[in-house]
This record gives sequence, C-alpha cells and structure tokens, in this order.
Amino acid sequence: MSSEKPQSSSLGSPASLKAIPLGGLAEIGKNTMALVYGNDMILIDAGLGFPSEDMLGVDIVLPDYTFLKEHESKIRGIVITHGHEDHIGGIPYLLKDIDVPVIYGPALAMGLLEEKLNDVGLQDRTVLRQVKPRQQVKLGCFTVQFIRCTHSIADSFSVIIKTPIGNVFHTGDFKFDFTPVDGELFDFAALTSVQKEEGILLLMSDSTNTEKAGYTPSEKTVWKKLDEVFAAAKTRIIVTTFASNVHRMRQIIQAAIKYDRKVAILGRSMLNLAGIARELGYMSFPDGLLLKIDEINQLPRDKVVIMTTGSQGEPLSALTRIAKNEHKQVKIVPGDTVIISATPIPGNERSISNTINELFLRGANVIYGRDAGVHVSGHACREEQKLMINLCKPKFFMPVHGEFRMLVKHAELATECGVQADNTFVMENGDVLEIFKDRGAKIGTVKSGITLIDNSTSWPIDLQTVEERQLLAEDGVVNISLTVTQTKEILVGPDVSIRGIILPKATSPEEFLEQVKADVLRIFESEPSLKKLSGTDLKSFLLGAINKNFQTRMKFQPLVQILIQEISVKGAASIKESQAQSKRPL
Amino acid sequence: MSSEKPQSSSLGSPASLKAIPLGGLAEIGKNTMALVYGNDMILIDAGLGFPSEDMLGVDIVLPDYTFLKEHESKIRGIVITHGHEDHIGGIPYLLKDIDVPVIYGPALAMGLLEEKLNDVGLQDRTVLRQVKPRQQVKLGCFTVQFIRCTHSIADSFSVIIKTPIGNVFHTGDFKFDFTPVDGELFDFAALTSVQKEEGILLLMSDSTNTEKAGYTPSEKTVWKKLDEVFAAAKTRIIVTTFASNVHRMRQIIQAAIKYDRKVAILGRSMLNLAGIARELGYMSFPDGLLLKIDEINQLPRDKVVIMTTGSQGEPLSALTRIAKNEHKQVKIVPGDTVIISATPIPGNERSISNTINELFLRGANVIYGRDAGVHVSGHACREEQKLMINLCKPKFFMPVHGEFRMLVKHAELATECGVQADNTFVMENGDVLEIFKDRGAKIGTVKSGITLIDNSTSWPIDLQTVEERQLLAEDGVVNISLTVTQTKEILVGPDVSIRGIILPKATSPEEFLEQVKADVLRIFESEPSLKKLSGTDLKSFLLGAINKNFQTRMKFQPLVQILIQEISVKGAASIKESQAQSKRPL
Repeated sequence: MSSEKPQSSSLGSPASLKAIPLGGLAEIGKNTMALVYGNDMILIDAGLGFPSEDMLGVDIVLPDYTFLKEHESKIRGIVITHGHEDHIGGIPYLLKDIDVPVIYGPALAMGLLEEKLNDVGLQDRTVLRQVKPRQQVKLGCFTVQFIRCTHSIADSFSVIIKTPIGNVFHTGDFKFDFTPVDGELFDFAALTSVQKEEGILLLMSDSTNTEKAGYTPSEKTVWKKLDEVFAAAKTRIIVTTFASNVHRMRQIIQAAIKYDRKVAILGRSMLNLAGIARELGYMSFPDGLLLKIDEINQLPRDKVVIMTTGSQGEPLSALTRIAKNEHKQVKIVPGDTVIISATPIPGNERSISNTINELFLRGANVIYGRDAGVHVSGHACREEQKLMINLCKPKFFMPVHGEFRMLVKHAELATECGVQADNTFVMENGDVLEIFKDRGAKIGTVKSGITLIDNSTSWPIDLQTVEERQLLAEDGVVNISLTVTQTKEILVGPDVSIRGIILPKATSPEEFLEQVKADVLRIFESEPSLKKLSGTDLKSFLLGAINKNFQTRMKFQPLVQILIQEISVKGAASIKESQAQSKRPL
Repeated sequence: MSSEKPQSSSLGSPASLKAIPLGGLAEIGKNTMALVYGNDMILIDAGLGFPSEDMLGVDIVLPDYTFLKEHESKIRGIVITHGHEDHIGGIPYLLKDIDVPVIYGPALAMGLLEEKLNDVGLQDRTVLRQVKPRQQVKLGCFTVQFIRCTHSIADSFSVIIKTPIGNVFHTGDFKFDFTPVDGELFDFAALTSVQKEEGILLLMSDSTNTEKAGYTPSEKTVWKKLDEVFAAAKTRIIVTTFASNVHRMRQIIQAAIKYDRKVAILGRSMLNLAGIARELGYMSFPDGLLLKIDEINQLPRDKVVIMTTGSQGEPLSALTRIAKNEHKQVKIVPGDTVIISATPIPGNERSISNTINELFLRGANVIYGRDAGVHVSGHACREEQKLMINLCKPKFFMPVHGEFRMLVKHAELATECGVQADNTFVMENGDVLEIFKDRGAKIGTVKSGITLIDNSTSWPIDLQTVEERQLLAEDGVVNISLTVTQTKEILVGPDVSIRGIILPKATSPEEFLEQVKADVLRIFESEPSLKKLSGTDLKSFLLGAINKNFQTRMKFQPLVQILIQEISVKGAASIKESQAQSKRPL
C-alpha cells in the first residue's frame, strides 16, 4: 500500500464533503460512488460492468479499487440502492481485498448479494443488513435514509444522505412509474419534506436516458401487448428479457397463468432471481407452475411458455442456441412466438439482430423492436429528470450513471431547470468534487480506471494482454523454432507452425510452411556474419529479416515468434535461451 | 471448373425466368442479383459488404462467385443501379476471374467504377457504358430500361427488365423524395405506363427500412437544421457523413458558401467522390472553395468547415483521430461544432458512440442522433414501400436488400397490398426462383456464400482462419519447443513463449514460463512410457497432458502449440518433425 500523503492532500479540507465517482461515469455500469467527510467514507453501490467487443477474453470490468484500498480504514459501509449487477456485482471482488464493516440495502438486493458471497466463500467478510422504506442508518458522520423509488427491479431505493454540511440526494436508478406493477410508489413525501425543511445541497441523478425526450411509459403498459400476444399465440411462446427485471417476469408469469400455460425458466441467473424474489414475496405463483427443462416436451406446445436469458444475443445463452437450432430440448417450430422483451445494450445490436434473423429463418413469429410495445425502459427520460430536479431544487448538481455525452446533456437540463451552470459538475471517474455549504469545485483526481477480469479464473487482465490478443486476432501468429550449435550452424529445424494466418492465394499451408523454412535457411546462408552473434542478437536479426520478408513479399505482418535453442554437440547440452518477440512497425 | 450438369438441372426450364440472389439478402450489402432466361444471364449490381466485428482481420466481404464462374459464358452484362459500394464494389474482384462483356450504369457510378478499375489495372477487362434516364439497352434476350429514382447518391436508377415472359421491376435502392436536392424526380410516368400497358410480372423491392413506419423525410429537410447550426456556430464546424452521400455533401457546401466558410475535405473516398461528382456536374462550387489540409490552420476558426469521413467510428478515420486528439492538423477547441450527419450501420453503434463521447470530452458541441434533424435515410419506409407495390401491382414479389427479418416483414406488406401470399418469395442467397407467366416457385439452390478478403493482400480468407483468430483472441497462445534424442531424452529445452495469456494473479510472466517448463519436465519424468512413442504420438501425449494441467490447475485453456525436434546425438542430425496442435474440449 502506498503512502496516504498524496491522496489526503487531494482530498481537500476535512470540513468539506467530497464526492468521488469511481465507476459509472463516462460509461454505463460499475456504479461506485465514494462520499468522504473528515475521517468517514461511505460507498453508494459497488457494481460491475461488461466489456466492449474489443476487450477480447474479458468477462467483467471492475473499477480500480486502489483508492478504496488506500483509505480502507475510513470506510464505514456500503449503501446499496437496488439489486442490479451494475450496482452490487463488484462487491464480491471488492471484499476480497478491502474490509467493509457493513452493507445496507433492500431485501431483494441483499438476498442476491448473500448468494453471491456464499458462492465465493466471502459471506463472513461483512455484515448484510436489510432496510425498509424510510429507514435511517448511521454510518460515521453520515445518516442515510432509504426512500422508495420506481425502477425495473423490485425493491429499489433512492437515498437521502445527511452530512455535516447538508443533504445529498442520490436517485439510484429511477423512473417515475405512476402505476407500478407492485403498487410501490415513489416516495415524494419523504423527499419533499426534507427538501422543504432542510433543502438538498447536492443532487446526484441518473442520466441514462437524457438523450430521450418525454416520459418513459409505465411498466404496466407492457401488459396490454403481452396479453394480446398470448391471446393470439397458437403454439409455443418464448419470452426473453433481462434476468433482473422482476416486474417483467412477474407480468409474463401472470399472462401464463391467465392463458393456462406452464412456465419453464432457462438460464441460471433468471432462475436464481425468480427463486429469491418469490421467497421474499416480490413475486408469487402456484407451486406447480414451473416446468423443469426436461418436462417442456411432455406438454402440448400451446401449454408452454419458455422464459429465457439471451436478450442481448449472448453466444452461450439459451435463446441464441435455440435460434441456431443448437439447443437440445427446445426447437423452434414454424408458428412459434418469440417475444424479445428488452432493448439492446449499446454494442449488442448486431448479435441480437442476428438472433432475430435466425428465429425468423426457422419460422418463428418474432415480436421485437422499439415500437412493438413489449418493452419499456427502467430509466427516467428528460421530462422525468426535470421533475426530479424540480422536486429537489438542489444547490449543486452532479449527473451520474451515463456516458459522457449524457452527463453533459443532463447538466444542461439542470441549468435549464434553474441550477446555476457553475454549480453543475460533469465528472469523470476519479474526479474529486469538494463542496462546502456555499461553494463547490473539482479539486483534483484520485487513482481510478478499470480492472479487467476473466471470469473463468477471476484473475485481473492487464491491458497489454488485451492488446496482444487484438494483434493475434488481426494478423495471426507464425512460430519458428530451431536448434543451433555454438557456432550458429543449424542443427535441427527450422520448424514452423502457424495460427490464424491468411495464406496467399493458391498457396497451401504446407507450401507456406516450406517457404518460411526456406527463408530462414536463406538468411543463414546469405549472412555469414550471423555466426558471430550472441543468441539474443541472432534472434533479433532473424526476426527483423523475417518480418521484412513478410512485409515486402507478402504484404502482411503477422506476429512472429522465434525460439532458438543453442547446443554444444558434445552430447551434453549447453542451452542458451533467449526470447525475442516480433516488434511491429508503427 | 466443375461440370455444369447439376447447375443446369437446378436452373429449371429454359423457357422460364430464373432470379437468383447471390448477395444482398439476409444481410445488408453485397447486392448481386442474377437473372437467367435460356442461355442468357445478366447481373443487377455487384456489390461488396463489410465484415461483422467477429470476422477478425477481414476487410471486405464478397459473394461467392462460383455460380457465376460456372455460367460465365451466359453472362451478357451487368446492370448498375447506382454508385454505392454495396452495388458496385464487387466488380473489381469479379472481373479478375470472370469475363463480363459490358457494364451499363449511370454516369456517376461509371465514373467511380472506372477509377476503381484503373486502380487495379482491370480497365480493359470490360466496357463501361453510361446510360441516360429512360434509355433502353439490350443484353441477350433482356431489354433493360433505366428509369430515374431518388436515393442518397445522385444519379440513381430503378430498372425495368423486359424478358420473354414479362417485365421485372427492380427498384435498386430507393426512397420517394418528392423534393430532391437535385430536382431529379422519381419517374412515375415511365413505370406506370409499362405497368398499365404490359403489367409487372415480378417486383424486386428494397427492404432496408421495412421495420420503420411512415415515410422517410426528404433530403431537403436536412437543410433547415444545417442552416440553423451553421448560423449559430461561432468557431470551427466539422461535419461527418457517408463518403457517398452526394446530396448531403452538396448541402454542406451550400451552407459553407452561405456562411462564408471554406471547406476542407478529409478522407480519400470523400475527396474522390467530390471530384468525380463535380466533374460530371452533380455538384458545383467555385474553384477557391476547397482548402488543402495544411491550409486549415491558416484561416480563422470561424471561416472553416471540415467535411470528413468517420461517421461510423472507423478506427483510422480522420474523425476518430480528431476525437482522440491524435490528428496532426485538426484539434478540437472547446466550442467547436461537430455534426454527425449519418446513422450507425448496425454493429457500429458502440464505436461511433465512443467517438461522440470523446468529442464532448474535448468540449465540442456535438449535433447527433435520430432526433437532431441532421440526417435522413436514403431508403423507403413502409408507406413508401406500399406505394411502390401499388404502382407496380406485381403478380410476383421478391423483397431484396435487407436482413432476413426485414424480408419477411416486407413480404407481409406485399400481401397486405394485394399480392397473393403464395406469390411472395422470401429468398436466401443462392435460392433459385423460377417463374413462368402464371406461376412461380423456389426450385433449388446454387452454390452461394461469402468470400472474405484481407484488403492488404486481396487474398481470400477461409473461415477456419477466422475461427483460429477468434480462439487466439479469446485465450491467447502458449508455444512450447524442445529437442529430444531418438530415445526421447530432452536434449534442449523446453522453451516456452506466450502471447495474449492472462497470468494467474501475482504470477510474473517469468514465473509462468518456468511453471510450464517444469510441467513439461515432470511429464517426461513421470511417464517412462513416453520413451517408446513416435514423434507424433509424443507430441499428442504432451499436448493432452499440458492441456489437462492448464484446465485443472489454472482453469483456462489457451491454444497450445508444441514443436518437437528429434536429433541423433552422433553429430549429424536426423530430424523428425511432426506438428500437432491443441485440441480444445467442446
């Protein structure tokens, strides 16, 4: 752990409030917000993100936790707004290295989190405490009140954080759903009474849909269309949605019951959530409703609904395998209905689009797209965001949860609604906002960034590895191996192998390998000076010559790796190893 | 060349018309439609497509030309509807292998094509002939009439093809723009007079926007918003659009002239098109209007418009480099205006989104998105598609140019408009539609598919190479090389090198390499039976054991390549080579 000196100086005055986003700004996901006052720090949410397509082999993206590790002793606890992965998914990774005395959050989120921690054996690393609407908890100098908000997962909260210099309101993810499926309304009264009596110093508000005008429709509007599709379906119905959308799953189950169908749930995450949500009372259905996967084909096709993950076209998901006709139990028969009850997360458009094409190809009637009426967003659009700003009348405003351009537009919206432009702060991850009662400013940055995780190993991946993979993927690799004597006579080899190489037209792989071997031999013959080189220099020389060959003769530039083994022929081996790797011209 | 037997049988009766899409169905791009009657074949367009993100290292996607090669002697010519890459871009590749006597098309497309053919030295392989509106050309038994249509590139045509059994109407790409920028209206009269006098037997119509309700707005509606943005801009304006959108470039130039700004064009394709379009009279501007790239910084910022490629977030494009602050001549200064006058092609959403975020980050005012008013589509929406079907009243209908789901929806639309459902044909590439005067049916398929091209070499890439690259990219590669005696004693090595490997936490690359070496030595020690194996068997055994090690101990599965060299120690080398490669468990 490095000295705390530079960090504490960057943390400004002890008698000011610092807000430091560590994730969740400039890109969606990984929401992690640190609030610091004096010697006390709390986190609001600690999520994970998913990689973009060029992060080859990466499964999970986490915030860099260096800053938290360095200030570990100040952490009083984590406040969770709701149970989505981008708000709780980082906790199992964070707890591995960092002590957190307590985590407060809604029952559903705590249920999901408990299972996550059990899975990795970290259940004893902290204390999980469920909170009820309007409950207040004390964490150091902060008092946090949880107030009900509406979003696409049940049991969602916004939080009012009372600090020594004033109140912070963090919306969490929200929309204003005036007719929520579970009847749990946004708690206007709790918010406005605090606003009226004490005021809101700083509002942090969800920016996801700042690019969208108007209002997000109520989750209940989906019911009408679902009901219509279920009524018309003559054979099997397959519905995909986000595994975490409890309200949607609840409506699908309701439709299944109404139309006398049984429900099979495919996908571990969805099955998981359904179990926990039912146990905690956020969903209810009769015991016999659920089908096991191997029971699907025992019922008539018009008696079955399959609810599945795969709404993002994930390659291994059940829906993708069904679309490709690779799923063992579930085959599409022409006339089947498939409902895509979700929108693509940016970057997934192509893969879900492919899935939809394949479903059509197999004769399915696919209900999809923004105008189909089978999906609504869980986030507030511009009119709702303005309502939120009006309700809070904050002195300071920080847009959170959104890409950079959305943050900019949300800050502009706040200005339109009367917040002084100087008092709006578009932050990047790691930026430190310091506020006093009467003024605020960005005062510096702390270490931030991303940590890439390969799920199969849970090991962090460095960016260089990802770049190497991009190179491998773009041009392939040529391996050359040879054994030489101490006087650099070739004793064995060269052996050549290739992977991912595009061969010149009309050249067979065998011919190509022979060409490369001949190249190496020719280089040895034509350059007698080679014999004086050390092992490392020989390798560099060879690499340069081979690279030049590829470039001029074949016009391409794969990664070339050369392994040279040096041997004294007198029986016993004196081995010199050196490794050099292809340097690519810029 | 394989025997023509199977193909001719799959081509049905000589007295019927066969329509065979070879590209442009089930995915956007690569439009290539073959029409066959008796011994005559013509092609309508011959385009290229661009790769999806998982086609690593691929630059261009072409249709498989096997069928055309096999029927080369029947080809009477190619008919080009307009100058977009997905309609003419395949021709330089096609002409390499296949004789085409003549290509007819609009002047702008022929100008672009001529330059392409000159670039690759193929200008003598065929004859290019410009056509005028309503001109008729004869190609074997077909008479083709070009009639003016409206689209996003100037000089676009639809074609009426008179065949021995009736008329085919192919829309090309179209929208109904009732107030086109160049005043060239859709030629309703030519179409409807043919329809009235002779009827349309088969309509092939553009399906791109079948998922969109209503009408596509006129290109001219963009003017109002451009004018507004130009009027308000205080410093530099950067506009990006498709390099081929002549109408849009024309409007941007018009705005520049109105607001007394000079124009710099970045991007070879755009500069190219502007030159050819101006030369042919599709665009006009005074000589001194254009700036060279090194003159940009000699003028005040409010006197410059930069028109650039990069509307799809292409990594090497000028706009992307400007956004990343990596462009030598053009830097964003806060307050600059950037207009994204294009929509993302499916699959490019993430990259253009990243570009926009970076532009905001540098303080640019970015005008973008579907509601910004700075872009309209070049393709017909549902109401226009219905109008087209109504104008043609075709007996048979084949949706073209669209993903599979769009074709399905477009065929449904035709049925709504009165075409018999049995007479609509949703085709896949390679499907053969045979029609007579009174009936039509899919009668089989010809060889079709895609050919992947690496632009740097123009060599075709096989799919296996792409798959190898995906594996390399996902898990990296471990190379192991060793030299053994004839009795399988290790003489030199093992040497190990890695690329793109995620290392276990707290393991340095050196430690990892040592571990793998130790693994190999341990395998040799613990398995005395190794000594009796042949070189190939030894390699397979080693590969299995090493893979198992990675899987159980480290929980990951890179590609492992082993090179074993065998040597007789008596000075002279007897070399046995064998190569085996890692097999991955399913």
